[in-house]
Amino acid sequence: MERDDYLANVKIRMPEKRYIHTIGVMETAISLAKKYGEDEKSAETAAILHDIAKYADENWMREVVQTKGLDPRLLGWGSEILHGPVGAWIAQHEFNITNEDILNAIRFHTTGRAGMSKLEKIIYIADMIEPNRNFPGVENLRQIANENLELAMESCVSHSITFLVQTKQPIFPASVECFNDIIS
Amino acid sequence: MERDDYLANVKIRMPEKRYIHTIGVMETAISLAKKYGEDEKSAETAAILHDIAKYADENWMREVVQTKGLDPRLLGWGSEILHGPVGAWIAQHEFNITNEDILNAIRFHTTGRAGMSKLEKIIYIADMIEPNRNFPGVENLRQIANENLELAMESCVSHSITFLVQTKQPIFPASVECFNDIIS
Repeated sequence: MERDDYLANVKIRMPEKRYIHTIGVMETAISLAKKYGEDEKSAETAAILHDIAKYADENWMREVVQTKGLDPRLLGWGSEILHGPVGAWIAQHEFNITNEDILNAIRFHTTGRAGMSKLEKIIYIADMIEPNRNFPGVENLRQIANENLELAMESCVSHSITFLVQTKQPIFPASVECFNDIIS
Repeated sequence: MERDDYLANVKIRMPEKRYIHTIGVMETAISLAKKYGEDEKSAETAAILHDIAKYADENWMREVVQTKGLDPRLLGWGSEILHGPVGAWIAQHEFNITNEDILNAIRFHTTGRAGMSKLEKIIYIADMIEPNRNFPGVENLRQIANENLELAMESCVSHSITFLVQTKQPIFPASVECFNDIIS
């Protein structure tokens, strides 16, 4: 499948605003891939598909977790956490993506994990800093991403955990494993 | 063993400053126990013994974890995380404490955990707010602890996770399980 086919396919699965976000992530991910020597086509594909499951039915996503052998820790979590791993499952089974690095970049784009690849970091960071994002501190994260990928990853996951604590939202264990890994 | 025996026993295992902290935790814990209807004697004993392993040899503590069946996740962590669980082990085997609630209060006083008892919360909070503690925000935590134990626990564990992120220190998984549990 080519870029335009992927784009057309994700467009009908999400509201306009989320599609605009997806385009933003795609452009940011390609630019980071160029800067840090990652395959641009992989970054493009992972970015286009990263939110493919964002508006999928939550009960259906739980069913996928249960019946398709996904991480059992996902059960009991909502769409915010489910849509990455289930999105990777859709990418693999509906879009026939076989590149495990692309699948992992989709799978872990919200939570992060210990031992992330360069592509995974690029998608995680691009998702947080793409031009349509607008939260206190995003400009600082963009500057760091422009200079140092590792430091950007550390800053983004730190920002994410701090935000979840401040807004009293649960933290998925993989995010803390990601933080502990990246500071070590 | 009586209060003075416990105090004499911990005094020789720690520097003067840590002993003064222990007295502060004891007084704060007794006062919180009084306020929130917990057994004062249990609070006193748990508080006196909470840092009993703080200055124990780290290699010996790892040996205790490995040979005495403690949580295997503790291996790979330093004295800051080890001294609670190993302290509980000392309290049980050297001081013959059999009250599981007191042992858990010592065991989880640094990390917290999901499903903490009232006594565990009291020791966790007292450790953070005792009068000798001096960090930005401690006065606010003291005020909350004076009004609402649950909210104080939430505020203290939130403060702890945020502090670890800001200072780039690893977060033990049980702290996040504690946070997720208390906000749910």
